[in-house]
Amino acid sequence: MQRPSGRLPEQLRPITLTRQFTKHAEGSVLVAFGDTKVICTASVVPGVPPFLRGQEQGWLTAEYGMLPRSTGSRMNREAARGKQGGRTVEIQRLIGRSLRAAVDLGQLGENTLHIDCDVIQADGGTRTASITGAWVAVADAIGWMKAKGMVKGEPLIRAIASVSVGIYQGVPVLDLDYPEDSNADTDMNVVMADDGGIIEIQGTAEAEPFSEDQFAQMLRLAKQGIGELNNLQREALAAG
Amino acid sequence: MQRPSGRLPEQLRPITLTRQFTKHAEGSVLVAFGDTKVICTASVVPGVPPFLRGQEQGWLTAEYGMLPRSTGSRMNREAARGKQGGRTVEIQRLIGRSLRAAVDLGQLGENTLHIDCDVIQADGGTRTASITGAWVAVADAIGWMKAKGMVKGEPLIRAIASVSVGIYQGVPVLDLDYPEDSNADTDMNVVMADDGGIIEIQGTAEAEPFSEDQFAQMLRLAKQGIGELNNLQREALAAG
Amino acid sequence: MQRPSGRLPEQLRPITLTRQFTKHAEGSVLVAFGDTKVICTASVVPGVPPFLRGQEQGWLTAEYGMLPRSTGSRMNREAARGKQGGRTVEIQRLIGRSLRAAVDLGQLGENTLHIDCDVIQADGGTRTASITGAWVAVADAIGWMKAKGMVKGEPLIRAIASVSVGIYQGVPVLDLDYPEDSNADTDMNVVMADDGGIIEIQGTAEAEPFSEDQFAQMLRLAKQGIGELNNLQREALAAG
Amino acid sequence: MQRPSGRLPEQLRPITLTRQFTKHAEGSVLVAFGDTKVICTASVVPGVPPFLRGQEQGWLTAEYGMLPRSTGSRMNREAARGKQGGRTVEIQRLIGRSLRAAVDLGQLGENTLHIDCDVIQADGGTRTASITGAWVAVADAIGWMKAKGMVKGEPLIRAIASVSVGIYQGVPVLDLDYPEDSNADTDMNVVMADDGGIIEIQGTAEAEPFSEDQFAQMLRLAKQGIGELNNLQREALAAG
Amino acid sequence: MQRPSGRLPEQLRPITLTRQFTKHAEGSVLVAFGDTKVICTASVVPGVPPFLRGQEQGWLTAEYGMLPRSTGSRMNREAARGKQGGRTVEIQRLIGRSLRAAVDLGQLGENTLHIDCDVIQADGGTRTASITGAWVAVADAIGWMKAKGMVKGEPLIRAIASVSVGIYQGVPVLDLDYPEDSNADTDMNVVMADDGGIIEIQGTAEAEPFSEDQFAQMLRLAKQGIGELNNLQREALAAG
Amino acid sequence: MQRPSGRLPEQLRPITLTRQFTKHAEGSVLVAFGDTKVICTASVVPGVPPFLRGQEQGWLTAEYGMLPRSTGSRMNREAARGKQGGRTVEIQRLIGRSLRAAVDLGQLGENTLHIDCDVIQADGGTRTASITGAWVAVADAIGWMKAKGMVKGEPLIRAIASVSVGIYQGVPVLDLDYPEDSNADTDMNVVMADDGGIIEIQGTAEAEPFSEDQFAQMLRLAKQGIGELNNLQREALAAG
Repeated sequence: MQRPSGRLPEQLRPITLTRQFTKHAEGSVLVAFGDTKVICTASVVPGVPPFLRGQEQGWLTAEYGMLPRSTGSRMNREAARGKQGGRTVEIQRLIGRSLRAAVDLGQLGENTLHIDCDVIQADGGTRTASITGAWVAVADAIGWMKAKGMVKGEPLIRAIASVSVGIYQGVPVLDLDYPEDSNADTDMNVVMADDGGIIEIQGTAEAEPFSEDQFAQMLRLAKQGIGELNNLQREALAAG
Repeated sequence: MQRPSGRLPEQLRPITLTRQFTKHAEGSVLVAFGDTKVICTASVVPGVPPFLRGQEQGWLTAEYGMLPRSTGSRMNREAARGKQGGRTVEIQRLIGRSLRAAVDLGQLGENTLHIDCDVIQADGGTRTASITGAWVAVADAIGWMKAKGMVKGEPLIRAIASVSVGIYQGVPVLDLDYPEDSNADTDMNVVMADDGGIIEIQGTAEAEPFSEDQFAQMLRLAKQGIGELNNLQREALAAG
Repeated sequence: MQRPSGRLPEQLRPITLTRQFTKHAEGSVLVAFGDTKVICTASVVPGVPPFLRGQEQGWLTAEYGMLPRSTGSRMNREAARGKQGGRTVEIQRLIGRSLRAAVDLGQLGENTLHIDCDVIQADGGTRTASITGAWVAVADAIGWMKAKGMVKGEPLIRAIASVSVGIYQGVPVLDLDYPEDSNADTDMNVVMADDGGIIEIQGTAEAEPFSEDQFAQMLRLAKQGIGELNNLQREALAAG
Repeated sequence: MQRPSGRLPEQLRPITLTRQFTKHAEGSVLVAFGDTKVICTASVVPGVPPFLRGQEQGWLTAEYGMLPRSTGSRMNREAARGKQGGRTVEIQRLIGRSLRAAVDLGQLGENTLHIDCDVIQADGGTRTASITGAWVAVADAIGWMKAKGMVKGEPLIRAIASVSVGIYQGVPVLDLDYPEDSNADTDMNVVMADDGGIIEIQGTAEAEPFSEDQFAQMLRLAKQGIGELNNLQREALAAG
Repeated sequence: MQRPSGRLPEQLRPITLTRQFTKHAEGSVLVAFGDTKVICTASVVPGVPPFLRGQEQGWLTAEYGMLPRSTGSRMNREAARGKQGGRTVEIQRLIGRSLRAAVDLGQLGENTLHIDCDVIQADGGTRTASITGAWVAVADAIGWMKAKGMVKGEPLIRAIASVSVGIYQGVPVLDLDYPEDSNADTDMNVVMADDGGIIEIQGTAEAEPFSEDQFAQMLRLAKQGIGELNNLQREALAAG
Repeated sequence: MQRPSGRLPEQLRPITLTRQFTKHAEGSVLVAFGDTKVICTASVVPGVPPFLRGQEQGWLTAEYGMLPRSTGSRMNREAARGKQGGRTVEIQRLIGRSLRAAVDLGQLGENTLHIDCDVIQADGGTRTASITGAWVAVADAIGWMKAKGMVKGEPLIRAIASVSVGIYQGVPVLDLDYPEDSNADTDMNVVMADDGGIIEIQGTAEAEPFSEDQFAQMLRLAKQGIGELNNLQREALAAG
């Protein structure tokens, strides 16, 4: 088996995490997983949604979008069509759920962390890159809140990152790019904490069901990859 | 640990699958997982979506809805609000993906199986009940197509069913009802084929990350439950 | 003239009113007019619309929907299309207006009775079945309010029911089913109180105008049919 | 009983029908029922809706709107809100149904008569004025088609007009204006042909149910009023 | 060069400004620029948008629409389509901006002047006619506010009017009608105050870029035309 | 007068034009006017809109958007709100009109150039930066078409660029940034060709009307700035 990119099965694409990518957001990160590039911003917005008002806690929510020509052929602009597609909704709910597991909402005060993940170039794995990059943006936004004296304790309770794994031509591979993703038998996205705790697993058999054994192999790969991503997140924050 | 319903950890709720529940659809099943009740219909509609035209194959798609007062307090009607919520979209995509794994689309001719899952009473597990019931409706609709001579081979390539598993007060439990679901630490929905192959896994840590060991225990419970559901599906079809 | 169903011109279809059909709503009734089946729920929701706030009265409003495959060929789901069709809007306004004539809104406190009529199987006369069934659900919801001590007087001021009448092959007939409805010269829906008072009349000449004499004959049939429906409503409530 | 306007119970408001009110439409009529003023246009548009294609017949459809400040206090603009309200939908369906009863669609060729009724000043009875005025616009548009040689036979098969009747302070009155309409016990809109045939009756008890006797009195008034309106329509067309 | 209408290059169409055209609005003007006819109303609505609350000032906003058959062939109704088109949005923003330059918002109290410009017949120049007519409606609405004692000072700080200019067959012409507009090389809309101050200029080269010299000629024509329009506005108000 | 940025009145911000910024689009340019940064892509899409079919010509259309946190405080995402705001619509229409003046649509074959301008960081002048950058993307996309043999002649008929000018504290200044833009008395956006021909002028008096003399001064500044921008565009293309 030869991966289209020439990578080893257990090899991530080149990963970069560029902080302060844009100037207005409290946290702003350009994340690249190879040719997949996503601008992740974390905005500190006063107030919480109605269902949380008066409960002395904060909230975190996420939205996701793709520029119309981030992809090989141009997609319709969701704002012009007048609604977000099902895939978009599914992804932004995943991003929000995952990042809420990284934050103690009770420590945020009545503020909302509003995460925006906008894909400027897509080559597979946009949701895993979004989660990985957005976590760094969240860390920066919380740092900003601390510097402003808006929080007292430590709202950031763990590091999380995300990667895809799949079965490509019968072999479990890490961090699928688009040519692999569109031909994989099985595709799984995993979100994990830096202590190996599982935050979210979403596995889908594209054609044939997969076995528990394949599942176990994929999970092992994901764990290794997420460990590497956690290291890169730490380095990026340390460099700040 | 005492489950609110008094069930054993590995015990399903009472399951019923009522075929020919309504008269117009080619397949129409009322599925009950305890107090969760969903009308699942499979409609045979001539034609396929634009992206498949001329490829001599069929398609399967699903939509999901809840009656406004299927729940403890009344929800807004999505048709009146003018859009489907994120949860609805996420669930109907899952139902469609799962059922496509049960059908050889190349055997359907240029026809679409349109699945509708409408929850008339909700008590947790509406998506797993929907998939389990809708599979029976699909089987009936394909039977109808065969009787009409619309298909030659066997489009139904495997039986699938779905169940939720979770960690409730530290103990892995099968088929969570609403009181458990809203208090579980972890919630996982599993779709499997009757040979144990995994079609879809979606696991979410609600508060704390879960371990690989917990994951393995939950997967084992799910496999057992899905086996029982497969038996009930077979019996329902045999009774026809 | 032979009715497709073999019924006499003045004969209703078999009518059933099943209370407590679902468990969450304060009033929940499955109504069947022959093969037409509608789930009618009445929900007690605190608060009133903005235009009534502070006036120490309640409100009643209704919404109507059809499951996509309640009909012979599948209809588009209104929630997915993003808007309710004109027929839906027209019917739900009729249901709301009619039921408001049965309730003394000044006795409800600042609460809204939210009626949902969802057709699970259609065979003509869905709006008249909806009104007839929903009135029973309203009675149950008001009973629930009384049991809770939420109302002091008697908000339910009269019984109402509804039936269709039409001219089929030149003969006035009661309670049209779909084969009659789609071939009738004239179709009229009547809502009446149990004392014979008229709440609403909507008569439409489908092809040829109809005469005052035909009108009078149809009205007489409607009155008889509504009398029978009122009896069935009373029996259903007494059985509770 | 004194009507707010000083009119007799059986007296119409001053009615005017101004043809060729705007220059582009094939039929264009400004109708005034007292202070209620509606621009009614009939446009001849080639083609028919999908459900009629290839059946060698035409179609007639209607839309209705109110200018935002046609009323005492400004209403929201439906185009800006992004949807038509329930009342608008109900009225435009009534206008379309009523006018289709005046036209032999089989004589139109594959053309659609598109009726637009836009209220520029409202004082009660906008739907009845719309139908009455739009019929004249339809007659002009059909005249235009004849002059162009687009139709051979006579598509206009009868004259129709519409008026409201109600019970005001216990007395049946004809052609309610806004002060009456908002205080009437009962409000009924009647559409009739010039031979007294009934096209559409919509009667609503606003507070108390009404009796068959009251109904008969109202219908008699409506018949008289529509006769007068038919005369005015004829005069308007003769003047052309 | 011969203008289709036979007008001289510097000649306006016949202009009329009919005040009190409808009875409900505080200001209501029918403006005609030749065959272009627009109903302009100014409504005094208590309250201001959220971004201005508590700032003790008022607001002015505008909406624009065309009746579906105001044009040569019928346009879709924006309310039925569910959204306003791009051209509509562009025009109503221009109308609002222009009229805000005529009013001292600080003098209005917390009230909003809501301007509606509805085109009942279009023949080119609907936006310039709208602005010119709406200014008169604003003057009347402010007069109404003064009569009610709602304002103390003088909110109306200047007269403004608007006209189009263009290059038609190489010659600068004033106040283009539809046959000119659809064939012009360049089209420019100018809004000016009565002292010659420029409020808004929007010039667009339809095919070839235009020169600064052409621009200067067009601006000179516009200034002359707006002077004449200001006189007509003054006369209309004086006649009241 | 001191500009907030310390620039001279006639001084542009630092301008960069980065070609091939993303890899999928036929033309992809990151344009920066100081801190204003916009991704401009030009996509070659086969086919033309319905109104041009069969006319053997192409089309060019543009869409514009801002990332939610491209601005100082987070804006709502238009895709999530379900519609594009008025400002967005106005700007994308301007971009499309302006670029169509640079292209001979008759030379494109039945293809559409679809322009997307997405602001990733905003600091005033996003529409002028968009037009200036998008022109370079159009040039690259047309180059791509030539290389593919899709066009024979030269569809790119002129270079265009755009800049804003305004009166800031009484002094005409070039290329306003956000602090100037939000305090300017007058704001004008100019689109010009490289031979000085005017494509579009949009000038708005924010508070006080401006004089013809001020207008002439602003136009002179714009002309100078656009000349400089044309040079930078040429250099960027030459560097390719």
